Amino acid sequence: MKACGLIVEYNPYHNGHHYHFQQAKIVSGAECMVAVMSGNFLQRGEPAIVDKFSRAKMAIQQGVDLVIELPYFYAVQHSELFANGAIKILNSLQVDSLCFGSEHGEIDDFNTLYHFITEHQKNYDLYLTEALNQGNSYPKANDIAFSKIGGENLSIDFAKPNNILGYQYVKNIYDLHTTIFPYTIKRIKNNYHDREINDPIASATSIRKQLLTAHTNTNTNELNDTIPSITNESLESYKELHSSWHYWEAYFPLLKYRVLTMRKDEFANIHGIKEGLENRIINTAKKAESFSEWMELLKTKRYTWTSLQRVFTHILTNTYASEIEAYVTEKKPSAIRILAMSKNGQNYLSARKKEIDVEWYTSNKHPYPYQAFDDRIDHAYYSILPLTSQQYLTKQAYQKPIFKTP
Amino acid sequence: MKACGLIVEYNPYHNGHHYHFQQAKIVSGAECMVAVMSGNFLQRGEPAIVDKFSRAKMAIQQGVDLVIELPYFYAVQHSELFANGAIKILNSLQVDSLCFGSEHGEIDDFNTLYHFITEHQKNYDLYLTEALNQGNSYPKANDIAFSKIGGENLSIDFAKPNNILGYQYVKNIYDLHTTIFPYTIKRIKNNYHDREINDPIASATSIRKQLLTAHTNTNTNELNDTIPSITNESLESYKELHSSWHYWEAYFPLLKYRVLTMRKDEFANIHGIKEGLENRIINTAKKAESFSEWMELLKTKRYTWTSLQRVFTHILTNTYASEIEAYVTEKKPSAIRILAMSKNGQNYLSARKKEIDVEWYTSNKHPYPYQAFDDRIDHAYYSILPLTSQQYLTKQAYQKPIFKTP
Repeated sequence: MKACGLIVEYNPYHNGHHYHFQQAKIVSGAECMVAVMSGNFLQRGEPAIVDKFSRAKMAIQQGVDLVIELPYFYAVQHSELFANGAIKILNSLQVDSLCFGSEHGEIDDFNTLYHFITEHQKNYDLYLTEALNQGNSYPKANDIAFSKIGGENLSIDFAKPNNILGYQYVKNIYDLHTTIFPYTIKRIKNNYHDREINDPIASATSIRKQLLTAHTNTNTNELNDTIPSITNESLESYKELHSSWHYWEAYFPLLKYRVLTMRKDEFANIHGIKEGLENRIINTAKKAESFSEWMELLKTKRYTWTSLQRVFTHILTNTYASEIEAYVTEKKPSAIRILAMSKNGQNYLSARKKEIDVEWYTSNKHPYPYQAFDDRIDHAYYSILPLTSQQYLTKQAYQKPIFKTP
Repeated sequence: MKACGLIVEYNPYHNGHHYHFQQAKIVSGAECMVAVMSGNFLQRGEPAIVDKFSRAKMAIQQGVDLVIELPYFYAVQHSELFANGAIKILNSLQVDSLCFGSEHGEIDDFNTLYHFITEHQKNYDLYLTEALNQGNSYPKANDIAFSKIGGENLSIDFAKPNNILGYQYVKNIYDLHTTIFPYTIKRIKNNYHDREINDPIASATSIRKQLLTAHTNTNTNELNDTIPSITNESLESYKELHSSWHYWEAYFPLLKYRVLTMRKDEFANIHGIKEGLENRIINTAKKAESFSEWMELLKTKRYTWTSLQRVFTHILTNTYASEIEAYVTEKKPSAIRILAMSKNGQNYLSARKKEIDVEWYTSNKHPYPYQAFDDRIDHAYYSILPLTSQQYLTKQAYQKPIFKTP
């Protein structure tokens, strides 16, 4: 049974994701579709709109066979580590291929690019360090370094976020000496950051924007055209049961309390805090009246919106640089956490049991090695909900996985 | 100008406090009444019903001349340190006398008791350690040690909380070699812990209970007979402006978030955490659905309600044992913080300026030495209020003190 990997966030699962899923199945010819999905917090340093279990369930109902959690310490990271974690997991699970969406859409160019950068690696690294020292953000510095080694003449546009991620997937596939075969699907229609819904295939950003303003807007027809009905039902039911979706503004009072009661020396432990960023965070905390206002006060050339959001996520979850460091330097994952599976997914695991070199878990129960870490992240995530919901939802992690029979 | 010290919490200022104030003025013959008052958190490990500025204002309006903050690191402590801090401050301020309320009411017996315990100090300490090692709470162990040295034959009942505090005041007056002359006033009517209001002089506990249930009870006549109208107006206006008073249940979601996102090794830093208490706190946090339920789950012979509340206060405010230790071992206060004063109080300070050996501050502005510490405590205290109130109220500490002209 051939398996194809997908690297996803499904925030929430929409028509674009479904198109990606269907195309990936076709091009890879796989019978088992394995999605590695960010957990409760996402790569851009945001809480997911609904929790990982709800999002895993949407995916499994749409045909995905296995939904594996990309642990927090890989998920809430810049693209290199995000990709590194996802490829390590897919490699451990012995998938035959990976299919990713990209603005560019031509896999040969990604392969060429990998070899080109590898050849110029030394210079590339030098230019990168130089650009970072000049106070550029990481994405910007990357872009500069890439231009300087002559990369601008290659056809892939590195200003596009999915091209950057795709490149990192390909790089890790080769660097980690995996046998995963890479495919890419050209992303169609809306760009990742687009805020407006123009088409049945809209960006997740525009869909979330529409969702989060929906309470003042009864016209959700436009929205219903861009997400499967299963997604819509799942989102509505989450909100009805638990009073709220998850978005940064809802965490603002908690985050502010936390920042203003942290001792100065504690900031240094938090992953992503450096160069006196803690002083800026403390000083602006007293002024900001909302999360977005806080972000506006903090933003500089060096600190992008995304990197600041990731720092806030680590503050909220009290995540230390030292623990992140210990996890991400593991050569292979200590454990794999299955959030949801179909009968087909279960069969795949049984069939490959001997080759899969990592223990998999379907619950956080001991001896799941990331148990304490995961509990902490989950509690932070659910902390904005009513107490009864918090208790109900945190228990999910200790129950049987979401399972779908054919 | 003679000054008399009072050691108070005014939570809130009620008729019993006013009786104490009036009697103290008479017996001491002082022209200036100096109250050392707990700040936003109290000796029993509770948030004060309204903030220290509102409570200081009530006191000054009732005739107190100076309201000095008993800093958090002395206020949220067992009676020995609470008394030690208060007497150090009053001594620095050169007051001539102290007048405290006690169930016993005879100052000679306190003096005799001090000399008796001092004589038997060595045995007393031995018995105390023994009783503590047998798993008794601190108050209980004290009681046992006191009986064993023959203290039960003396007339002061140590089961009464104000007798215990009173003894500590007297002890510190002598141990610190001050020239403060102690007086005591017999507390009349309701006992400290009484929950029912029976008389115009009711206990603060019964008054708070009545206040906090008042929203379901329109009959507040009984209550109005036990507190001055100024207190009533101040409480009502605080609630109207800031939506809520302060009580533990309101902090429960925040406290739960904090406990469940703390790393295990961080608990060891918190003042008052020892002997694996952190495990009990973590395990019960997941079960408890309210603050009182949490307390019930935690309570043991060793950990009294009060000592557990103090631990929760230190968790909420992220207060380390190491910083508390550094502050309370100071021979004299590094600074004195004036919350409110009358013209008379100001004259007293001017008159004694040369003899007062500690800098006094009327704002948290630099170089107030406890600025960062105090900011943290205040932010934790106000964090349950709407954001606009938080911002408004935290600014008070940086404004001119509350001042009353004659």
